[in-house]
Amino acid sequence: MTQIDRQSIPVPTLRRMPAYCNYLKSLSVKGIVYVSTTAVANDLNLIPIQVRKDFEYTRLSGKPKIGYNLELLIEAIEYILGWNKMSNAVIAGVGNLGKALLSYQGFKNYGLDIIAGIDQDKKKHGKEVAGRKVYPPEQIGVLVKENKIGIGIITVPAESAQLMADLFVKNGITALWNFAPVRLNVPADVVVQNENLASSLAVLSQRIKQQKEK
Amino acid sequence: MTQIDRQSIPVPTLRRMPAYCNYLKSLSVKGIVYVSTTAVANDLNLIPIQVRKDFEYTRLSGKPKIGYNLELLIEAIEYILGWNKMSNAVIAGVGNLGKALLSYQGFKNYGLDIIAGIDQDKKKHGKEVAGRKVYPPEQIGVLVKENKIGIGIITVPAESAQLMADLFVKNGITALWNFAPVRLNVPADVVVQNENLASSLAVLSQRIKQQKEK
Repeated sequence: MTQIDRQSIPVPTLRRMPAYCNYLKSLSVKGIVYVSTTAVANDLNLIPIQVRKDFEYTRLSGKPKIGYNLELLIEAIEYILGWNKMSNAVIAGVGNLGKALLSYQGFKNYGLDIIAGIDQDKKKHGKEVAGRKVYPPEQIGVLVKENKIGIGIITVPAESAQLMADLFVKNGITALWNFAPVRLNVPADVVVQNENLASSLAVLSQRIKQQKEK
Repeated sequence: MTQIDRQSIPVPTLRRMPAYCNYLKSLSVKGIVYVSTTAVANDLNLIPIQVRKDFEYTRLSGKPKIGYNLELLIEAIEYILGWNKMSNAVIAGVGNLGKALLSYQGFKNYGLDIIAGIDQDKKKHGKEVAGRKVYPPEQIGVLVKENKIGIGIITVPAESAQLMADLFVKNGITALWNFAPVRLNVPADVVVQNENLASSLAVLSQRIKQQKEK
Protein backbone atom coordinates (compact mmCIF):
# COMPACT_ATOMS: atom_id res chain seq x y z
CA MET A 1 0.00 0.00 0.00
CA THR A 2 3.09 2.17 -0.23
CA GLN A 3 1.77 3.77 -3.40
CA ILE A 4 -0.50 5.95 -1.24
CA ASP A 5 1.12 9.37 -0.95
CA ARG A 6 -0.06 10.31 2.49
CA GLN A 7 1.51 13.74 2.44
CA SER A 8 -0.72 14.85 -0.42
CA ILE A 9 -4.03 14.18 1.32
CA PRO A 10 -5.79 17.45 2.17
CA VAL A 11 -6.83 18.01 5.77
CA PRO A 12 -10.61 18.18 5.06
CA THR A 13 -10.41 14.75 3.39
CA LEU A 14 -8.39 13.44 6.30
CA ARG A 15 -11.02 14.76 8.71
CA ARG A 16 -13.73 12.78 6.93
CA MET A 17 -11.72 9.54 6.92
CA PRO A 18 -12.65 8.45 10.50
CA ALA A 19 -16.35 8.74 9.63
CA TYR A 20 -15.83 6.68 6.46
CA CYS A 21 -13.89 4.11 8.43
CA ASN A 22 -16.56 3.70 11.13
CA TYR A 23 -19.34 3.57 8.56
CA LEU A 24 -17.59 1.03 6.31
CA LYS A 25 -16.86 -1.18 9.31
CA SER A 26 -20.55 -1.11 10.23
CA LEU A 27 -21.33 -2.39 6.70
CA SER A 28 -18.62 -5.04 6.95
CA VAL A 29 -20.25 -6.43 10.10
CA LYS A 30 -23.46 -6.86 8.09
CA GLY A 31 -21.62 -9.07 5.59
CA ILE A 32 -21.64 -6.50 2.77
CA VAL A 33 -18.77 -7.01 0.27
CA TYR A 34 -19.04 -4.08 -2.16
CA VAL A 35 -20.08 -0.49 -1.52
CA SER A 36 -20.90 2.37 -3.91
CA THR A 37 -19.88 5.99 -3.34
CA THR A 38 -23.52 6.99 -3.83
CA ALA A 39 -24.59 4.77 -0.93
CA VAL A 40 -21.80 6.13 1.28
CA ALA A 41 -22.73 9.70 0.35
CA ASN A 42 -26.41 9.08 1.12
CA ASP A 43 -25.80 7.49 4.48
CA LEU A 44 -23.19 10.02 5.61
CA ASN A 45 -25.07 13.05 4.33
CA LEU A 46 -22.34 14.06 1.84
CA ILE A 47 -22.42 14.69 -1.89
CA PRO A 48 -21.31 11.71 -4.05
CA ILE A 49 -18.60 13.65 -5.93
CA GLN A 50 -16.99 14.49 -2.58
CA VAL A 51 -16.92 10.84 -1.53
CA ARG A 52 -15.51 9.82 -4.93
CA LYS A 53 -12.72 12.40 -4.67
CA ASP A 54 -11.91 11.36 -1.09
CA PHE A 55 -11.76 7.67 -2.04
CA GLU A 56 -9.36 8.45 -4.89
CA TYR A 57 -6.66 9.05 -2.26
CA THR A 58 -6.80 5.33 -1.40
CA ARG A 59 -5.51 4.62 -4.95
CA LEU A 60 -8.15 1.89 -5.21
CA SER A 61 -10.63 1.84 -8.07
CA GLY A 62 -14.30 1.00 -7.73
CA LYS A 63 -15.90 -1.34 -10.26
CA PRO A 64 -18.61 0.31 -12.38
CA LYS A 65 -22.14 -0.41 -11.02
CA ILE A 66 -20.64 -2.53 -8.23
CA GLY A 67 -18.45 -0.16 -6.25
CA TYR A 68 -15.47 -0.62 -4.00
CA ASN A 69 -14.31 -3.81 -2.34
CA LEU A 70 -15.20 -3.07 1.28
CA GLU A 71 -12.29 -4.85 2.98
CA LEU A 72 -9.65 -3.29 0.73
CA LEU A 73 -11.22 0.13 1.22
CA ILE A 74 -11.20 -0.20 5.02
CA GLU A 75 -7.60 -1.43 4.93
CA ALA A 76 -6.49 1.52 2.77
CA ILE A 77 -8.27 4.09 4.96
CA GLU A 78 -6.83 2.57 8.13
CA TYR A 79 -3.40 2.76 6.55
CA ILE A 80 -3.95 6.43 5.73
CA LEU A 81 -5.12 7.10 9.28
CA GLY A 82 -2.34 5.10 10.85
CA TRP A 83 -4.88 3.19 12.88
CA ASN A 84 -3.28 -0.09 12.00
CA LYS A 85 -0.55 0.87 14.47
CA MET A 86 -1.35 1.76 18.07
CA SER A 87 0.16 4.82 19.72
CA ASN A 88 0.48 5.03 23.47
CA ALA A 89 -0.31 8.35 25.13
CA VAL A 90 -0.34 9.88 28.58
CA ILE A 91 -2.61 12.71 29.57
CA ALA A 92 -1.43 15.62 31.70
CA GLY A 93 -4.23 17.15 33.74
CA VAL A 94 -6.79 14.80 35.27
CA GLY A 95 -9.63 17.29 35.72
CA ASN A 96 -13.06 16.87 34.14
CA LEU A 97 -11.79 17.06 30.56
CA GLY A 98 -8.85 14.75 31.32
CA LYS A 99 -11.25 12.26 32.91
CA ALA A 100 -13.56 12.49 29.89
CA LEU A 101 -10.69 11.62 27.55
CA LEU A 102 -9.37 8.86 29.83
CA SER A 103 -12.85 7.32 30.02
CA TYR A 104 -13.54 7.48 26.30
CA GLN A 105 -13.03 3.88 25.18
CA GLY A 106 -13.45 4.84 21.53
CA PHE A 107 -9.88 6.11 21.08
CA LYS A 108 -8.62 2.51 20.95
CA ASN A 109 -10.54 2.07 17.68
CA TYR A 110 -8.56 5.04 16.41
CA GLY A 111 -5.17 3.61 17.29
CA LEU A 112 -4.73 5.61 20.48
CA ASP A 113 -4.29 4.06 23.91
CA ILE A 114 -4.13 6.52 26.79
CA ILE A 115 -2.29 4.42 29.34
CA ALA A 116 -1.93 6.81 32.28
CA GLY A 117 -2.76 10.21 33.72
CA ILE A 118 -0.42 12.84 35.15
CA ASP A 119 -1.54 15.38 37.72
CA GLN A 120 0.12 17.70 40.22
CA ASP A 121 -2.59 17.05 42.82
CA LYS A 122 -1.16 14.61 45.40
CA LYS A 123 -4.66 13.42 46.30
CA LYS A 124 -5.02 11.97 42.80
CA HIS A 125 -1.72 10.05 42.75
CA GLY A 126 -2.20 6.28 42.72
CA LYS A 127 -5.94 6.64 42.10
CA GLU A 128 -7.43 5.19 38.93
CA VAL A 129 -9.69 6.76 36.29
CA ALA A 130 -11.31 4.24 33.96
CA GLY A 131 -8.64 1.73 34.94
CA ARG A 132 -5.73 4.11 34.26
CA LYS A 133 -3.47 5.20 37.12
CA VAL A 134 -2.66 8.82 37.91
CA TYR A 135 1.02 9.70 38.48
CA PRO A 136 2.93 12.84 39.57
CA PRO A 137 4.65 14.87 36.78
CA GLU A 138 8.07 13.61 37.96
CA GLN A 139 7.07 10.14 36.73
CA ILE A 140 6.76 11.19 33.06
CA GLY A 141 10.31 10.05 32.20
CA VAL A 142 9.77 6.57 33.58
CA LEU A 143 6.32 6.26 31.98
CA VAL A 144 7.66 7.28 28.57
CA LYS A 145 10.54 4.79 28.72
CA GLU A 146 8.52 1.84 30.01
CA ASN A 147 5.53 2.27 27.71
CA LYS A 148 6.91 3.73 24.49
CA ILE A 149 4.72 6.83 24.83
CA GLY A 150 4.44 8.67 21.53
CA ILE A 151 1.80 11.29 22.32
CA GLY A 152 1.39 13.69 25.22
CA ILE A 153 -2.13 15.03 25.74
CA ILE A 154 -2.38 18.36 27.56
CA THR A 155 -5.55 19.17 29.50
CA VAL A 156 -4.04 21.30 32.26
CA PRO A 157 -5.12 24.95 32.73
CA ALA A 158 -3.68 27.48 30.24
CA GLU A 159 -1.06 28.77 32.70
CA SER A 160 0.54 25.33 33.19
CA ALA A 161 0.34 24.12 29.58
CA GLN A 162 3.77 25.37 28.44
CA LEU A 163 5.42 23.80 31.49
CA MET A 164 3.82 20.44 30.72
CA ALA A 165 4.75 20.73 27.03
CA ASP A 166 8.39 21.40 28.03
CA LEU A 167 8.34 18.40 30.35
CA PHE A 168 6.92 16.14 27.63
CA VAL A 169 9.47 17.35 25.06
CA LYS A 170 12.34 17.00 27.55
CA ASN A 171 11.34 13.37 27.97
CA GLY A 172 11.41 12.63 24.27
CA ILE A 173 7.76 13.01 23.28
CA THR A 174 7.45 14.46 19.77
CA ALA A 175 3.67 14.75 19.38
CA LEU A 176 1.37 16.85 21.55
CA TRP A 177 -2.41 17.05 21.53
CA ASN A 178 -3.12 20.36 23.22
CA PHE A 179 -6.53 21.17 24.74
CA ALA A 180 -5.28 24.21 26.69
CA PRO A 181 -6.23 27.56 25.08
CA VAL A 182 -2.62 28.66 24.50
CA ARG A 183 -0.14 28.46 21.68
CA LEU A 184 2.76 26.23 22.72
CA ASN A 185 6.40 26.95 21.98
CA VAL A 186 8.05 23.70 20.91
CA PRO A 187 11.09 22.64 18.87
CA ALA A 188 10.52 22.31 15.09
CA ASP A 189 10.51 18.50 15.17
CA VAL A 190 7.58 18.37 17.61
CA VAL A 191 4.07 18.13 16.14
CA VAL A 192 1.28 19.99 17.98
CA GLN A 193 -2.40 19.49 17.27
CA ASN A 194 -4.40 22.24 18.97
CA GLU A 195 -7.93 21.59 20.14
CA ASN A 196 -9.30 24.99 20.98
CA LEU A 197 -12.93 25.05 22.08
CA ALA A 198 -12.97 28.87 22.21
CA SER A 199 -12.04 28.96 18.52
CA SER A 200 -14.83 26.54 17.64
CA LEU A 201 -17.23 28.61 19.68
CA ALA A 202 -16.09 31.68 17.74
CA VAL A 203 -16.88 29.94 14.46
CA LEU A 204 -20.29 28.81 15.75
CA SER A 205 -21.18 32.25 17.07
CA GLN A 206 -20.18 33.81 13.75
CA ARG A 207 -22.26 31.32 11.78
CA ILE A 208 -25.29 32.00 13.99
CA LYS A 209 -24.95 35.71 13.17
CA GLN A 210 -24.63 35.05 9.44
CA GLN A 211 -27.75 32.89 9.62
CA LYS A 212 -29.69 35.70 11.34
CA GLU A 213 -28.48 38.31 8.86
CA LYS A 214 -29.61 36.28 5.84
CA MET B 1 -18.96 49.26 14.04
CA THR B 2 -21.43 48.23 11.35
CA GLN B 3 -18.79 48.76 8.68
CA ILE B 4 -17.24 45.42 9.65
CA ASP B 5 -18.36 42.84 7.09
CA ARG B 6 -18.45 39.80 9.31
CA GLN B 7 -19.41 37.41 6.55
CA SER B 8 -16.15 38.03 4.71
CA ILE B 9 -13.87 36.98 7.56
CA PRO B 10 -12.12 33.69 6.75
CA VAL B 11 -12.46 30.84 9.25
CA PRO B 12 -8.70 30.62 10.07
CA THR B 13 -8.72 34.32 11.00
CA LEU B 14 -11.84 33.81 13.07
CA ARG B 15 -10.18 30.92 14.88
CA ARG B 16 -7.28 33.16 15.90
CA MET B 17 -9.56 35.92 17.19
CA PRO B 18 -10.19 34.40 20.66
CA ALA B 19 -6.42 34.19 21.27
CA TYR B 20 -5.99 37.84 20.18
CA CYS B 21 -8.86 38.87 22.43
CA ASN B 22 -7.48 37.11 25.53
CA TYR B 23 -3.99 38.41 24.88
CA LEU B 24 -5.08 42.01 24.28
CA LYS B 25 -7.18 41.95 27.44
CA SER B 26 -4.14 40.79 29.41
CA LEU B 27 -2.26 43.88 28.09
CA SER B 28 -5.19 46.14 28.90
CA VAL B 29 -5.07 45.03 32.55
CA LYS B 30 -1.43 46.13 32.65
CA GLY B 31 -2.45 49.65 31.61
CA ILE B 32 -1.05 49.43 28.08
CA VAL B 33 -2.80 51.79 25.62
CA TYR B 34 -1.25 51.00 22.21
CA VAL B 35 -0.06 47.71 20.80
CA SER B 36 1.97 46.87 17.69
CA THR B 37 1.31 43.89 15.43
CA THR B 38 4.98 42.90 15.82
CA ALA B 39 4.56 42.65 19.60
CA VAL B 40 1.35 40.63 19.21
CA ALA B 41 3.04 38.32 16.69
CA ASN B 42 6.03 37.81 18.98
CA ASP B 43 3.99 37.01 22.05
CA LEU B 44 1.52 34.73 20.27
CA ASN B 45 4.14 32.94 18.20
CA LEU B 46 2.69 34.12 14.85
CA ILE B 47 4.26 35.93 11.92
CA PRO B 48 3.67 39.73 11.89
CA ILE B 49 2.15 39.82 8.38
CA GLN B 50 -0.48 37.30 9.55
CA VAL B 51 -1.43 39.47 12.52
CA ARG B 52 -1.58 42.57 10.31
CA LYS B 53 -3.88 40.83 7.83
CA ASP B 54 -6.12 39.53 10.61
CA PHE B 55 -6.38 42.97 12.24
CA GLU B 56 -7.41 44.48 8.89
CA TYR B 57 -10.79 42.78 9.32
CA THR B 58 -11.49 45.08 12.29
CA ARG B 59 -11.43 48.02 9.85
CA LEU B 60 -9.27 49.91 12.35
CA SER B 61 -5.93 51.37 11.35
CA GLY B 62 -2.81 51.28 13.45
CA LYS B 63 -0.70 54.41 13.80
CA PRO B 64 2.79 54.08 12.31
CA LYS B 65 5.42 53.30 15.00
CA ILE B 66 2.71 53.38 17.70
CA GLY B 67 0.29 50.65 16.76
CA TYR B 68 -3.36 50.01 17.47
CA ASN B 69 -5.46 51.59 20.19
CA LEU B 70 -5.92 48.64 22.51
CA GLU B 71 -9.46 49.36 23.71
CA LEU B 72 -10.82 49.95 20.19
CA LEU B 73 -9.12 46.79 18.98
CA ILE B 74 -10.62 44.68 21.79
CA GLU B 75 -14.04 46.21 21.15
CA ALA B 76 -13.85 45.44 17.42
CA ILE B 77 -12.70 41.84 17.97
CA GLU B 78 -15.43 41.24 20.55
CA TYR B 79 -17.94 42.58 18.06
CA ILE B 80 -16.64 40.19 15.40
CA LEU B 81 -16.80 37.28 17.83
CA GLY B 82 -20.22 38.23 19.10
CA TRP B 83 -18.93 38.05 22.65
CA ASN B 84 -20.50 41.35 23.51
CA LYS B 85 -23.81 39.46 23.53
CA MET B 86 -24.31 36.42 25.75
CA SER B 87 -25.91 33.26 24.39
CA ASN B 88 -27.61 30.80 26.70
CA ALA B 89 -27.07 27.11 26.07
CA VAL B 90 -28.15 23.78 27.49
CA ILE B 91 -26.04 20.66 27.26
CA ALA B 92 -27.52 17.26 26.47
CA GLY B 93 -25.53 14.40 27.98
CA VAL B 94 -24.07 14.91 31.45
CA GLY B 95 -21.29 12.32 31.29
CA ASN B 96 -17.61 13.15 31.76
CA LEU B 97 -17.42 15.40 28.71
CA GLY B 98 -20.71 17.11 29.56
CA LYS B 99 -19.46 17.70 33.11
CA ALA B 100 -16.18 19.08 31.76
CA LEU B 101 -18.03 21.61 29.61
CA LEU B 102 -20.49 22.52 32.40
CA SER B 103 -17.60 23.09 34.80
CA TYR B 104 -15.52 25.18 32.41
CA GLN B 105 -16.06 28.72 33.67
CA GLY B 106 -14.14 30.19 30.75
CA PHE B 107 -17.07 29.99 28.31
CA LYS B 108 -18.66 33.02 29.99
CA ASN B 109 -15.72 35.11 28.76
CA TYR B 110 -16.64 33.90 25.30
CA GLY B 111 -20.28 34.95 25.49
CA LEU B 112 -21.63 31.49 26.27
CA ASP B 113 -23.55 30.61 29.39
CA ILE B 114 -24.46 26.93 29.78
CA ILE B 115 -27.40 27.24 32.13
CA ALA B 116 -28.50 23.61 32.54
CA GLY B 117 -27.81 19.98 31.72
CA ILE B 118 -30.13 17.39 30.18
CA ASP B 119 -29.74 13.67 30.79
CA GLN B 120 -31.88 10.57 30.46
CA ASP B 121 -30.47 9.08 33.65
CA LYS B 122 -33.08 9.56 36.40
CA LYS B 123 -30.39 9.43 39.09
CA LYS B 124 -28.92 12.67 37.72
CA HIS B 125 -32.19 14.65 37.66
CA GLY B 126 -32.29 17.49 40.15
CA LYS B 127 -28.57 17.10 40.90
CA GLU B 128 -26.21 19.96 40.18
CA VAL B 129 -22.93 20.07 38.25
CA ALA B 130 -20.89 23.24 38.81
CA GLY B 131 -24.07 24.93 40.06
CA ARG B 132 -26.14 23.92 36.99
CA LYS B 133 -29.14 21.64 37.43
CA VAL B 134 -29.68 18.47 35.41
CA TYR B 135 -33.15 17.95 33.88
CA PRO B 136 -34.86 15.13 31.96
CA PRO B 137 -35.12 15.54 28.15
CA GLU B 138 -38.87 16.26 28.43
CA GLN B 139 -37.97 19.55 30.13
CA ILE B 140 -36.17 20.99 27.09
CA GLY B 141 -39.23 22.89 25.86
CA VAL B 142 -39.75 24.64 29.19
CA LEU B 143 -36.02 25.38 29.57
CA VAL B 144 -35.82 26.91 26.10
CA LYS B 145 -38.85 29.14 26.66
CA GLU B 146 -37.90 30.33 30.14
CA ASN B 147 -34.23 31.02 29.43
CA LYS B 148 -34.08 32.07 25.76
CA ILE B 149 -31.78 29.19 24.91
CA GLY B 150 -30.01 29.78 21.60
CA ILE B 151 -27.54 26.89 21.52
CA GLY B 152 -27.93 23.17 22.15
CA ILE B 153 -24.72 21.32 23.01
CA ILE B 154 -24.72 17.59 22.28
CA THR B 155 -22.43 15.32 24.31
CA VAL B 156 -24.58 12.18 24.31
CA PRO B 157 -23.25 8.93 22.76
CA ALA B 158 -23.29 8.70 18.94
CA GLU B 159 -26.43 6.57 18.83
CA SER B 160 -28.56 9.13 20.73
CA ALA B 161 -27.18 12.28 19.08
CA GLN B 162 -29.71 12.52 16.22
CA LEU B 163 -32.60 12.05 18.66
CA MET B 164 -31.30 14.90 20.82
CA ALA B 165 -30.73 17.10 17.77
CA ASP B 166 -34.33 16.47 16.66
CA LEU B 167 -35.58 17.33 20.13
CA PHE B 168 -33.56 20.57 20.21
CA VAL B 169 -34.76 21.58 16.72
CA LYS B 170 -38.39 20.71 17.56
CA ASN B 171 -38.13 23.11 20.50
CA GLY B 172 -36.89 26.00 18.39
CA ILE B 173 -33.12 25.80 18.85
CA THR B 174 -31.30 26.81 15.65
CA ALA B 175 -27.65 26.31 16.63
CA LEU B 176 -26.09 23.01 17.69
CA TRP B 177 -22.59 22.34 18.98
CA ASN B 178 -22.12 18.65 18.34
CA PHE B 179 -19.47 16.60 20.17
CA ALA B 180 -20.91 13.22 19.13
CA PRO B 181 -18.99 11.51 16.31
CA VAL B 182 -21.93 11.52 13.88
CA ARG B 183 -23.14 13.78 11.11
CA LEU B 184 -26.50 15.26 12.14
CA ASN B 185 -29.45 15.66 9.80
CA VAL B 186 -31.02 19.06 10.48
CA PRO B 187 -33.17 21.58 8.56
CA ALA B 188 -31.26 24.09 6.41
CA ASP B 189 -31.81 26.99 8.84
CA VAL B 190 -30.07 25.16 11.69
CA VAL B 191 -26.33 25.77 12.17
CA VAL B 192 -24.22 22.80 13.33
CA GLN B 193 -20.65 23.11 14.54
CA ASN B 194 -19.08 19.65 14.73
CA GLU B 195 -16.38 18.92 17.28
CA ASN B 196 -14.96 15.61 16.24
CA LEU B 197 -12.05 14.37 18.33
CA ALA B 198 -11.51 11.34 16.06
CA SER B 199 -10.95 13.70 13.13
CA SER B 200 -8.42 15.72 15.08
CA LEU B 201 -6.68 12.55 16.10
CA ALA B 202 -6.55 11.54 12.43
CA VAL B 203 -4.86 14.82 11.56
CA LEU B 204 -2.38 14.42 14.44
CA SER B 205 -1.56 10.83 13.53
CA GLN B 206 -1.01 11.84 9.91
CA ARG B 207 1.27 14.70 10.90
CA ILE B 208 3.33 12.39 13.14
CA LYS B 209 3.87 10.10 10.15
CA GLN B 210 4.88 12.97 7.88
CA GLN B 211 7.36 14.09 10.53
CA LYS B 212 8.87 10.60 10.70
CA GLU B 213 9.08 10.30 6.91
CA LYS B 214 10.98 13.58 6.55
